[in-house]
Amino acid sequence: MIINKKLNKKSPLYMQIAKIIIDKIDDSFLKEGDKLPSERELATLFKVSRTTTINAYRYLEKNGYVNTKTGSGTYVIKENNQKNQLKHKIQWDEFFRPYGQLSMSSLMTEIINSSMMLDRISLDAGMPDPELYPLDKFKQLFCENMKYFKGQDFGYMSIEGLSGLRQNIAQMLVEKQIKAKYDNIMITSGSQQGIYLISKVLIEPGDYVVIEAPTYIGVIPVLKAAGARILSLPIKNESRLDILKDYIVRYRPKFIYTIPTYQNPSGNVMSKKQRKELIELAINNRLLIIEDDPYSDFYYDEKPPVSLKATSNYEGIIYISTFSKIIMPGLRLGYIVAHPTLISRVAMEKQYTDLHSNNLSQLLLNLYLKEGELTKHLEVVRKIYKKRRDIMARHITKSLNEYLDFSLPKGGFYIWGKILAPINSRKLLHEALNVGVSFIPGDAFYDIPTQGKELRLCFVSNSEDKIKESVVRLSRAFSSIIKKDRIINKDNNRPLI
Amino acid sequence: MIINKKLNKKSPLYMQIAKIIIDKIDDSFLKEGDKLPSERELATLFKVSRTTTINAYRYLEKNGYVNTKTGSGTYVIKENNQKNQLKHKIQWDEFFRPYGQLSMSSLMTEIINSSMMLDRISLDAGMPDPELYPLDKFKQLFCENMKYFKGQDFGYMSIEGLSGLRQNIAQMLVEKQIKAKYDNIMITSGSQQGIYLISKVLIEPGDYVVIEAPTYIGVIPVLKAAGARILSLPIKNESRLDILKDYIVRYRPKFIYTIPTYQNPSGNVMSKKQRKELIELAINNRLLIIEDDPYSDFYYDEKPPVSLKATSNYEGIIYISTFSKIIMPGLRLGYIVAHPTLISRVAMEKQYTDLHSNNLSQLLLNLYLKEGELTKHLEVVRKIYKKRRDIMARHITKSLNEYLDFSLPKGGFYIWGKILAPINSRKLLHEALNVGVSFIPGDAFYDIPTQGKELRLCFVSNSEDKIKESVVRLSRAFSSIIKKDRIINKDNNRPLI
Repeated sequence: MIINKKLNKKSPLYMQIAKIIIDKIDDSFLKEGDKLPSERELATLFKVSRTTTINAYRYLEKNGYVNTKTGSGTYVIKENNQKNQLKHKIQWDEFFRPYGQLSMSSLMTEIINSSMMLDRISLDAGMPDPELYPLDKFKQLFCENMKYFKGQDFGYMSIEGLSGLRQNIAQMLVEKQIKAKYDNIMITSGSQQGIYLISKVLIEPGDYVVIEAPTYIGVIPVLKAAGARILSLPIKNESRLDILKDYIVRYRPKFIYTIPTYQNPSGNVMSKKQRKELIELAINNRLLIIEDDPYSDFYYDEKPPVSLKATSNYEGIIYISTFSKIIMPGLRLGYIVAHPTLISRVAMEKQYTDLHSNNLSQLLLNLYLKEGELTKHLEVVRKIYKKRRDIMARHITKSLNEYLDFSLPKGGFYIWGKILAPINSRKLLHEALNVGVSFIPGDAFYDIPTQGKELRLCFVSNSEDKIKESVVRLSRAFSSIIKKDRIINKDNNRPLI
Repeated sequence: MIINKKLNKKSPLYMQIAKIIIDKIDDSFLKEGDKLPSERELATLFKVSRTTTINAYRYLEKNGYVNTKTGSGTYVIKENNQKNQLKHKIQWDEFFRPYGQLSMSSLMTEIINSSMMLDRISLDAGMPDPELYPLDKFKQLFCENMKYFKGQDFGYMSIEGLSGLRQNIAQMLVEKQIKAKYDNIMITSGSQQGIYLISKVLIEPGDYVVIEAPTYIGVIPVLKAAGARILSLPIKNESRLDILKDYIVRYRPKFIYTIPTYQNPSGNVMSKKQRKELIELAINNRLLIIEDDPYSDFYYDEKPPVSLKATSNYEGIIYISTFSKIIMPGLRLGYIVAHPTLISRVAMEKQYTDLHSNNLSQLLLNLYLKEGELTKHLEVVRKIYKKRRDIMARHITKSLNEYLDFSLPKGGFYIWGKILAPINSRKLLHEALNVGVSFIPGDAFYDIPTQGKELRLCFVSNSEDKIKESVVRLSRAFSSIIKKDRIINKDNNRPLI
């Protein structure tokens, strides 16, 4: 015990000593059960009489701080542990706001976490291959430019993002035929935050919104949390626009969330005609369109049609994209392109969410875009991913033909398969994890439960060898289930009640 | 016009040419009003007869794509611009969810933006001095360690944050006597996000929550947006715990948000006795405590009492802090310390907000903490800020004594002043901006409107010379208003109706 206070003459010495000890107990310097110095030692320590220290300990005992055991010493009192623990406990679940998407959410957590495990080949997350990130370029940019980084670059900055970066993005969008100025653009912490903030700004509880079915896994909990009622538009249905018209007439939805190009997970590309019809329908019905466009740079055959945003001047098109797929997720940067009025309102929302996005990422990305590195990087990556798509497709056709149906995606990250065997995709996942391969079962991409026959395989994250091996493992998982099922069926050939 | 398509024999040639042009109009390669090649030129271009191109243009004209002016040429049709613009317009305000905090929000925006203006001395934002950021150390850490940075460090990562960083924070908290393990800690994008996510998880619309009055400017819009009803606890009231008891009895609030140490903006320090009573009250009433602790490292005299979190094992204490003030805001990193059940639930919420916080910032901060640099940095900064506090206090006492009352804060970033003259602080701000100094008017820190006599001056962002100058300017602003008011009062000595 360190005594670092001097005694004064303002109050009785024994009381001053007792108070010092109480403070140390309160501050947890002295824990329950700790042995205190003997009265004699304490007297030497404070240079006081033994009577004073005896009185100090008496005072402490009387006030419930210590316990004197004859012949043993003076101890800090241990509270009744059982009682104390209960007193300090909180029934957390009673305090939480209800949360509807627990199962999906834990699936996403599992996916993100499992992507860090060794030996498992992960076809789940939409993760561009870490081996291909232009990390060396970013390191070089940092080292070359760090002399220009000043303290003020790392203070609080504009909510909408670094002005130079916003200008550079506007420039980048010219190539995509999107007309945008500085004040049409806002930086977000990934496109996930873009979706989140826009939903927060637009949705009032009870509002209807339209999503594609299937759609991006991360959009459903956002819409639900905002209190939206979700209308699902089947992506592969020929008459989807008629269904949308029907929804518009019956529910007056506020917006449609769509991924027109290399849709996640289906790989679908909305044709030019469909794009125009959708926009026309939106204009005539004052429907907003949230266009999510993370994949259009990943075309493996011909270039896709230009975005909805580039197709029309309709103000109601809100364009979202991200640098996670085209550069690397760890930047945590995306952007929104929209009317300045919407941008300002979204900025207000972002302000109290996290003030603004990361400074260093914005500075480095800005340098990277300025140097025109992105186009070169994409050319390299596109070729590699195209090969990977082809290899995965070839091997599935070769070894899984009887189990899995799919059509070759023209771009993007995913093969969207349908299981032909009488096997549920969650069951398949369970078996697949055992043999060291993971994917996302299809029902995760729907708001409304499905038959569970679909699955999404990401073909960009792994090397060609690993892709081959992953298909071998998938095939093993299928065989294993079918074998087990046959045995079960023999024993158990009756309906379950 | 570049023609990059070959004609085939499947449909009439004129139709194929017309379709190519339609596509170019639709893709906006050809804009409204553009002149098309002459029929002869077009014929040469496509190697077809002139009849074919005449037919193509006729088709286009019939379908409303072009207009042929005799003797001039063929033009892409200009739609009725007025009508078109109206068609594409959106009445945005109709689409937005109502937002209650517009005035505060625009104030915050103004503050953040004004901090970037030249020559104005900004005493508004709680911005640590950019000249003191340990930027050189971060640059050095980056360059020394970049060879160890791998692609996978920049992929998607765990929502709760980099595990090494969470462990290092746990280690750092030992010094603050807070017992926390890895799974008690979650990384957030600044403490603003911590407050936001916790509120999202805990508040259901209509729930009561307690804040200190005045309190941190950024917490009020978060609580309002979550639908909370706010109860204000006057910070300088002797019987504040009695008022809290009253609130508990009448409203059963879910939590209290408190900044016990060097409170923002008041500078108040909750005494040990008050801390213990508050915790006891919380335990007995199952009230949660959100303890925001960004300033406790900035003590200028003796060390402050330990945090509430360190004082008790009560699970209901949720501790939030940030690296924005002790290192630099641009890291955009803060953390939550709480029971693992709460951490998991908050992680679910963060997941669909922005997936996870910035990778590079987390990697660099982790290295910085590991090297034990923080303690050294804080020692340096503390001395400088203490001097600045003293200089500001001295100069206010000297030149503003008749206008402004304040008590010397023992730590933190702010002097909280009360205007003695019959002047409203918003009016003073207006005049102050004219003479080149800014601050935050006191009513921004309240949920309930006040008399508007208070103001917050941040003394850490500027050099000693600038602080002196800022007080001179403030004094000028006061004099200027008083002079004007005297003139007005002479002319207009009657009550306004």
